[in-house]
Amino acid sequence: MNSLFKQRSFALLTDFYEITMAYAYWKRKMTDQEAVFHLFFRRKPFNGGFSITAGLESVIDYLTNYQFDRSDLDYLSTITGADGFPLFEEEFLNYLGHLHFTCDIDAMEEGEVVFPYEPLVRVMGPLIQCQLLESALLTLVNFPTLIATKAARVCLAARGDPVLEFGLRRAQGIDGAITATRSAYIGGCFATSNVYVGKELGIPVRGTHAHSWVMAFESELKSFEAYAEVLPGNCVFLVDTYDTIRGVKNAIEIGKWLKRQGKDLLGIRLDSGDLNYLSVESRKLLDSEGFKDTKIYASNELDETIIADLKSQGAKIDVWGVGTNLVTGHGQSALDGVYKLSALRNPGGEWEYKLKLSEQMTKVSDPGILQVRRYFKNNQSIADCIYDRNTDLSKGCLIVDPFDRTKERRLNKDLKYRDLLVPIFRKGELVYNLPKLDFIRQKGQKELGRFDKSIKRFINPHIYPVGMEASLLNLKINLVHKVRRELVG
Amino acid sequence: MNSLFKQRSFALLTDFYEITMAYAYWKRKMTDQEAVFHLFFRRKPFNGGFSITAGLESVIDYLTNYQFDRSDLDYLSTITGADGFPLFEEEFLNYLGHLHFTCDIDAMEEGEVVFPYEPLVRVMGPLIQCQLLESALLTLVNFPTLIATKAARVCLAARGDPVLEFGLRRAQGIDGAITATRSAYIGGCFATSNVYVGKELGIPVRGTHAHSWVMAFESELKSFEAYAEVLPGNCVFLVDTYDTIRGVKNAIEIGKWLKRQGKDLLGIRLDSGDLNYLSVESRKLLDSEGFKDTKIYASNELDETIIADLKSQGAKIDVWGVGTNLVTGHGQSALDGVYKLSALRNPGGEWEYKLKLSEQMTKVSDPGILQVRRYFKNNQSIADCIYDRNTDLSKGCLIVDPFDRTKERRLNKDLKYRDLLVPIFRKGELVYNLPKLDFIRQKGQKELGRFDKSIKRFINPHIYPVGMEASLLNLKINLVHKVRRELVG
Repeated sequence: MNSLFKQRSFALLTDFYEITMAYAYWKRKMTDQEAVFHLFFRRKPFNGGFSITAGLESVIDYLTNYQFDRSDLDYLSTITGADGFPLFEEEFLNYLGHLHFTCDIDAMEEGEVVFPYEPLVRVMGPLIQCQLLESALLTLVNFPTLIATKAARVCLAARGDPVLEFGLRRAQGIDGAITATRSAYIGGCFATSNVYVGKELGIPVRGTHAHSWVMAFESELKSFEAYAEVLPGNCVFLVDTYDTIRGVKNAIEIGKWLKRQGKDLLGIRLDSGDLNYLSVESRKLLDSEGFKDTKIYASNELDETIIADLKSQGAKIDVWGVGTNLVTGHGQSALDGVYKLSALRNPGGEWEYKLKLSEQMTKVSDPGILQVRRYFKNNQSIADCIYDRNTDLSKGCLIVDPFDRTKERRLNKDLKYRDLLVPIFRKGELVYNLPKLDFIRQKGQKELGRFDKSIKRFINPHIYPVGMEASLLNLKINLVHKVRRELVG
Repeated sequence: MNSLFKQRSFALLTDFYEITMAYAYWKRKMTDQEAVFHLFFRRKPFNGGFSITAGLESVIDYLTNYQFDRSDLDYLSTITGADGFPLFEEEFLNYLGHLHFTCDIDAMEEGEVVFPYEPLVRVMGPLIQCQLLESALLTLVNFPTLIATKAARVCLAARGDPVLEFGLRRAQGIDGAITATRSAYIGGCFATSNVYVGKELGIPVRGTHAHSWVMAFESELKSFEAYAEVLPGNCVFLVDTYDTIRGVKNAIEIGKWLKRQGKDLLGIRLDSGDLNYLSVESRKLLDSEGFKDTKIYASNELDETIIADLKSQGAKIDVWGVGTNLVTGHGQSALDGVYKLSALRNPGGEWEYKLKLSEQMTKVSDPGILQVRRYFKNNQSIADCIYDRNTDLSKGCLIVDPFDRTKERRLNKDLKYRDLLVPIFRKGELVYNLPKLDFIRQKGQKELGRFDKSIKRFINPHIYPVGMEASLLNLKINLVHKVRRELVG
């Protein structure tokens, strides 16, 4: 979590219904019944072929500081029902005040490549706690994962060119900006414009000047000259305040002066107009004057589609500045993550597996206590298996597509594999060492490299095989039938 | 600003180029040159006919606490240029450390109805300060205004039905959620699910139970029964965990029990399926059993388009729960607000008016020190005039559409009017009393009521007349010609 939220409890950062349910569990003496919930999403963002996880650090900070303080309880005591009576008994509020987080949590690490229906987080513990955490866990995972995914797509479109994130001014709240910047970095961006995040998270910051700098002088040339005199080590000139081509010529003139001082014209920035045409013309001008190493930066409402299109046209752009469309997840403004109960231990001590029905099979939740196993061949990921953790996979497994059961695949026991959910908390104690941000970023790149490029294309990406282990799917189908029978009976 | 950010400086919450420009202004001894910047947007969000302002409270908190602390300066001192040298001199960092906010700020109040190109904020003061505030002001105004506008649209679609905001889990960061909730309330929502905001801002909170509550019991009926026993004053049952119509029947059964206790079945909630069909059928069932006052709540990826469509079909929905699509501004993920220099006092003490050129007239910024005057006839808004504050409008004025100069309109001196930018800071001192949130919300509704309904429709809304005062437009055009001539010459 960014430093705004460190060492501070956000127990009230939740939907009200979590509190009313908690109260009802308490009144019914169900608080400590052991439960399992999974957090997962159903739809690949941006119609793409993959997602990149992010947000675990915030989840850890949130859970580490979880508690209701006196003022939280005082507030809750003021809430009344439609009948005018306070909704919550004093004794319940006392209970909340003494509640400590004691769950087991397993989660995917940040920077993991992930697919729909795979649990990103598994929470196991007292029913009341599992329930109370729902809204915050969703907030803390949905948005970062969306933006890390968007950034990975933008970086893929840029084919290795550096991508600079500068979405602060269009981001969704202060923390929207901070979270987006961190997630964009995990997804592959190399730097940000956001100085606050640079300080707090150590992400490199970049930036030079705005149109207003140019307008504050009597001419563009004089403004570039003044900037070069003051910041000779940071010269990337924005050339479109009045006329782009003329701007490039002015930049070149100051570039020559910089050369004489033993400094470099690092770049020019195009921020409007036909970026393909202007970049090609600018490149010619720069090259013809001996500025072959001067980079061309481009910005202006870019996203992965526009970047891919500019690339395919042969635009001579070296560094891509992406703001609004990156930090707001343009095209899909939210990851549709949900959090579903999948098992409950009954008073006899037996686990009872649970699911939520729906007319659409895609919306029927998975029962069980789940894990995800990824199989590899020649260091490439070949398939993922969602399975119940009590199932023995030592002899390999059969995975089935739950939405087209004619599609199945046997995964040999000799294949290499890795289980993606790793222990984060045990009985409320943190048992996970959070990697440094740069390590997470590298992990994302490395993991993505283990997937065939067909899942990374933007149009009709290949669908990576994610199946349910056959016995788990059978269990699910039987449970669906059982619940439907009970409804009729 | 929400309490997360109160009494804490966010001077580093800025794009890096603001700092490099600040440094360059300082080196060039231009820090105290008096400047004027305006914040405005160009495109009406959601292809709609109007916007509602929000965010001023955060702006005030941000500016009131503005200062660079020691750790900020230490961080800035570590930043180097491409040449490996520190970018900023120690003396500049000392200067920043002693910088106090001393600008004059005029802004539109929150809950104002606003249109493209109208300044929402005017900043006048030392050039370096005006520049340093750019990124944060944009962040703090763009997103809240977007969401207040979205909420107003959703509420218009609901035609007076209550709209409940519950977007926390899909919001963009913690503060993304908090800011969205506050803005949605300003736009007309009546309550939120977000308990943190309930506590901090006093917005009413609502919520009952999730699917997991139902799944934690052996049957839906038993789960409703248990809830009713515990929270008889808060019974809105979610009826679609297994089968919606059966769920309604179960709710009715428990509703009868509630009646016997002298309590009410407040509502049922539909969260999936065909909301029109299910609401009509549910209404029939409820009415036939004497539950005419029981409300039907609906949710599931709703937005203004879907609500308007359901309304036109005659859906029997009384309360609308809107989450994801409201808090993320679905359809337009950001307001395209910008912040442009428009005047600079030259060393001789004269104001020099400034503009940024572009090949498109829509992107050429307006020069001057601007104000917006709204004219009324029979208490209805009839036109807005953007004018230079030094222009005498006491004899009425002529407004011209800057993008179609054949369109003009004379506004008689006898018309009632109101200037929309009001003083917020004078020489860095707060001179504005921020209204209470409920007052802001009422203002939004009241102001919107002063506009013809044709601007509030969703498809091809009427374009409300916003013109530039004729002499200001002439000045702008002459300035465009002058700058273009200088480019050629």
